Amino acid sequence: MPHLGNETLKAELGRAAWKLFHTTLARFPESASVDERTALAQYLALFARLYPCGECAGHFQKLLAQYPPQTSGRVAASQWGCFVHNLVNERLGKEVFDCMTVGETYKCGCAEEDKKGKGKKEGELVRGEKEKKEVVKKTGSSLEENLERSGRKIEVVREG
Amino acid sequence: MPHLGNETLKAELGRAAWKLFHTTLARFPESASVDERTALAQYLALFARLYPCGECAGHFQKLLAQYPPQTSGRVAASQWGCFVHNLVNERLGKEVFDCMTVGETYKCGCAEEDKKGKGKKEGELVRGEKEKKEVVKKTGSSLEENLERSGRKIEVVREG
Repeated sequence: MPHLGNETLKAELGRAAWKLFHTTLARFPESASVDERTALAQYLALFARLYPCGECAGHFQKLLAQYPPQTSGRVAASQWGCFVHNLVNERLGKEVFDCMTVGETYKCGCAEEDKKGKGKKEGELVRGEKEKKEVVKKTGSSLEENLERSGRKIEVVREG
Repeated sequence: MPHLGNETLKAELGRAAWKLFHTTLARFPESASVDERTALAQYLALFARLYPCGECAGHFQKLLAQYPPQTSGRVAASQWGCFVHNLVNERLGKEVFDCMTVGETYKCGCAEEDKKGKGKKEGELVRGEKEKKEVVKKTGSSLEENLERSGRKIEVVREG
């Protein structure tokens, strides 16, 4: 009886939340101001606090504490988001996502005019429209490895 | 050429965001502390600020300013969320959702144990599992009317 919940509903909510999460990070300013960095960090902390599934929220809060959000800009934030999502995927025995394709996968369909706005350029992470969306079963990937593969230098801050 | 964007992608993102939004509100504490109220208000403001579609974010920020989030507790927050969503539905020419069924529609599938935690009781808004989920084409509904129909007294604060 107890502790079961409805796994289908929980998974549907999870997919919706990850979609918003990754798309938000994929549209974060390329180079964020102090104010923008604070906003993202606070948003993610509140996201983890108010997430409807208490058990999932607890897991995510621990991840945030262990791997603090990378907020310097779009690439760092997006790669961080993919990294922590893969930690959850591994814990749940799900396929690990290839973080090189995260920018291609999570697009907002935003209007052209958004691109003119601050921090609203889209597709920065897209490495060719023809690149195949690939899901790889690979458990050894780390944030640092993915960043190395992406050829970009970003901060990597960890606690604990 | 300009300003079009990809309406399919934008709509998919919107559905994901609304799902998380309503489910979060449906799981908000029944009676919120000052700290919880502040957390929800900040979360919603940051949600509106960081939402990936800049045009949509702008619309939602205006809605938040005109109809500040109701944060006293679950019923107030959920009904407020349904009210502002219907304002967006009306603007987009979409069907208006019956706010009486919002608690029934947005469930998180959370584990039984969550119910024991603070503010994690589920189904409070469910008014009978057999109640038909009904979408009504009705443009005259207001937050106050819906609250009146729900027979609960909550705050209604408006600016402007």
